[in-house]
Amino acid sequence: MRNLGATEADAAFDVDGAIYTVRQYAKLGQRLAGKLFRDGSAVPLSKTGVFQGQHFLKPLGGAAVLINAFNFPAWGLWEKACPAILSGVAVLVKPASATAWLTQRMVEDVIRAEVFPKGALSILCGSPRDLLEQVRAEDVISFTGSSRTAASIKTHPNIVARCVRTNIEADSLNSAISGPDAAPGTAIFDLLAKEVVREMTIKAGQKCTAIRRVLVFREYARPLAKAISDHLATIKVGNPRNHEVKCGPLVNRDQQASALEGLGRLRRETEVTFGGEINFQPVDANNSTACFIQPALLFCEKPLESAAVNEVEIFGPVATICPYDSTEDAIKIARLGSGSLVASIFSDGPKFKRELVLGIAGAHGRIMVVDGSVGANHTGHGNAVPSCLHGGPGRAGGGEELAGLRALNLYHRRFVVQGSPALIADLAEAAIDASSLYA
Amino acid sequence: MRNLGATEADAAFDVDGAIYTVRQYAKLGQRLAGKLFRDGSAVPLSKTGVFQGQHFLKPLGGAAVLINAFNFPAWGLWEKACPAILSGVAVLVKPASATAWLTQRMVEDVIRAEVFPKGALSILCGSPRDLLEQVRAEDVISFTGSSRTAASIKTHPNIVARCVRTNIEADSLNSAISGPDAAPGTAIFDLLAKEVVREMTIKAGQKCTAIRRVLVFREYARPLAKAISDHLATIKVGNPRNHEVKCGPLVNRDQQASALEGLGRLRRETEVTFGGEINFQPVDANNSTACFIQPALLFCEKPLESAAVNEVEIFGPVATICPYDSTEDAIKIARLGSGSLVASIFSDGPKFKRELVLGIAGAHGRIMVVDGSVGANHTGHGNAVPSCLHGGPGRAGGGEELAGLRALNLYHRRFVVQGSPALIADLAEAAIDASSLYA
Repeated sequence: MRNLGATEADAAFDVDGAIYTVRQYAKLGQRLAGKLFRDGSAVPLSKTGVFQGQHFLKPLGGAAVLINAFNFPAWGLWEKACPAILSGVAVLVKPASATAWLTQRMVEDVIRAEVFPKGALSILCGSPRDLLEQVRAEDVISFTGSSRTAASIKTHPNIVARCVRTNIEADSLNSAISGPDAAPGTAIFDLLAKEVVREMTIKAGQKCTAIRRVLVFREYARPLAKAISDHLATIKVGNPRNHEVKCGPLVNRDQQASALEGLGRLRRETEVTFGGEINFQPVDANNSTACFIQPALLFCEKPLESAAVNEVEIFGPVATICPYDSTEDAIKIARLGSGSLVASIFSDGPKFKRELVLGIAGAHGRIMVVDGSVGANHTGHGNAVPSCLHGGPGRAGGGEELAGLRALNLYHRRFVVQGSPALIADLAEAAIDASSLYA
Repeated sequence: MRNLGATEADAAFDVDGAIYTVRQYAKLGQRLAGKLFRDGSAVPLSKTGVFQGQHFLKPLGGAAVLINAFNFPAWGLWEKACPAILSGVAVLVKPASATAWLTQRMVEDVIRAEVFPKGALSILCGSPRDLLEQVRAEDVISFTGSSRTAASIKTHPNIVARCVRTNIEADSLNSAISGPDAAPGTAIFDLLAKEVVREMTIKAGQKCTAIRRVLVFREYARPLAKAISDHLATIKVGNPRNHEVKCGPLVNRDQQASALEGLGRLRRETEVTFGGEINFQPVDANNSTACFIQPALLFCEKPLESAAVNEVEIFGPVATICPYDSTEDAIKIARLGSGSLVASIFSDGPKFKRELVLGIAGAHGRIMVVDGSVGANHTGHGNAVPSCLHGGPGRAGGGEELAGLRALNLYHRRFVVQGSPALIADLAEAAIDASSLYA
């Protein structure tokens, strides 16, 4: 809580997520033993059978350099470190300076517990100085943060020259999309309204997976805006130590300024349905010394024509209602995000659900579908669970994280051995079947 | 032959390789039908079973932009185009200008044959102009060529901003490595000498997989240099239309000048064992109007201390003998290439073979092992066969090509659907099991 300036629930969201992720990977890791994966079966390379090919996966010989964002100092470390450690690749974590304290303490505790070999886990706090100069071909960089920093990593001369593998998770304008069946009064309508409010206010909207755009059939757009606004009006924003408060401040002045600037840009192409007041009074706190943003629900009449709504990611408690007139338009608007981490679909229409999933799949890493049979039993629009892919194409960075043991692929490299059946059998004997990485 | 200025055998190597690759992928493609791959099994996401996750792979929504090198105008096109076409992703090929004629004719023939839907295969010859400005997040770039051009693609502002997926195959200082058992007079010794000569002279050494460094136990280094030199002395270099000629010219003046410059750099750290004369007389040709390089075998006494031998890739008929004193040193020298496409190991020593494979695997995409049981029945150090991985880490670009149906991964993107078992079953019904991509 001290680290993030967050409410207890928001701080716990990060730490509990980290613990859950470590537990899941600990379970998955019990299947693994050995230093090589055998990848597929042997392929014949000679008519007489004396020469074959066999693919293997081998852990990278270097280090996993994990560069993390400020919003998940606990979870961000472990969701990346677990698959690296399970791969046998040493970790150097560079947390965001704004919230490095928690990460540092966690790393210190783990090192003191002496559960890992020495050097398996290291941390660099503060300025990275010449870190990127030191990276070699057998290292890997896994980054979460802004697209600007991502670009500076990808174009760094040393990274480019050595073709260092990089995994990027960057900005994302995630959508929640309800179907033309989700009229006011239906359970689906209420599920969506609730999820939007939750996504806007948890961690004060400082989540890369949070709902930024709410795509809704035009007829239901105003009723949905009202339902969300009514719910937002009941949420106390202020001192995170006050137990009545559900939405705390942003992490620091820089983030507040950046969110206010984004809000200014969005306001030029939207109307304000709720909140977004610059001079609002936080509960039990003083905004002249803190970094609050009042939750804001915006309304954009013509989202297909709005640049800002589909381009400006406000890292705070702000979302925009985007009415659509046809399934085709809903797909178009979702794709105007130019690649997102996640979209959620709220509908009981089989055709709508199917068309949406297939229509937006190429631009999203994860698609959550809530219908009557799921009800409230979903895992949440914004929750990255260890068994499912986290990452998205295009603007979202093009990276892949989690997805169970698939995450180990980032820390392994494929090679093929061509040789005699005896040699290949000898190498394959100590290897384990890589099919578990794809299961 | 006209296109490359090559001998019939060298031109056929490219075209026959292309035909073989198309055939193999045509066979593999018969297994495929449908537009989605189901990737692994459903994962539970709720205790009651009403909410699950299922990963899928979907073809990219954009185009495959294939940018190729001059040395394989036929094979280079098809080894990339086959997996793209099988993925259902349209191809735009940009062949190297120096040898674009053959690629253009092949594409024209295929389009005239009307075997593909319109737009499935397009070609851009000459200057790419603003090609890289036009690429979008759902496109993919697969490039083979120099590391300098690779760097300009990877750092292009549009590619960086849109996180366009890129696959790179660039420079490589491949090694052939014989064991301390491979003494003069053994079959292995002769197999290595023969393979080095073949790799130096085929396509006049203009192969990204060609042997550039020959690592040999120090005691046998001079005898091996003599055996290779004796063999090279019998090979006629000259007019590719003369049927006695086995080694033709380089493709053009630029490549000749670049090879001569590299040779000059290598000579400062090596001695010349054979050839490399600037004013040599090609058979039935005149070097004042052609672009010959006399094959050159160099000898480097201290390869662990030589920068040039491990850094300068001469794209011509040049290789360097690198004596080593221990298995450990052999591994070190091979790895000084900073990531290579391929290494071949020539030995009958089980311990040596195993230590070498595991010692260099992290720095190589393919490792060919020739022992007494394999003899001459190997597929060749420099041959990229469709069933085995082509690509290497670090300096070699970090990309992956071929490896059977694994090649289709480059043209697909993974996503996960979280929803009801009924929805997932509906989506999965039309999908085919992705396990064939890893087999």
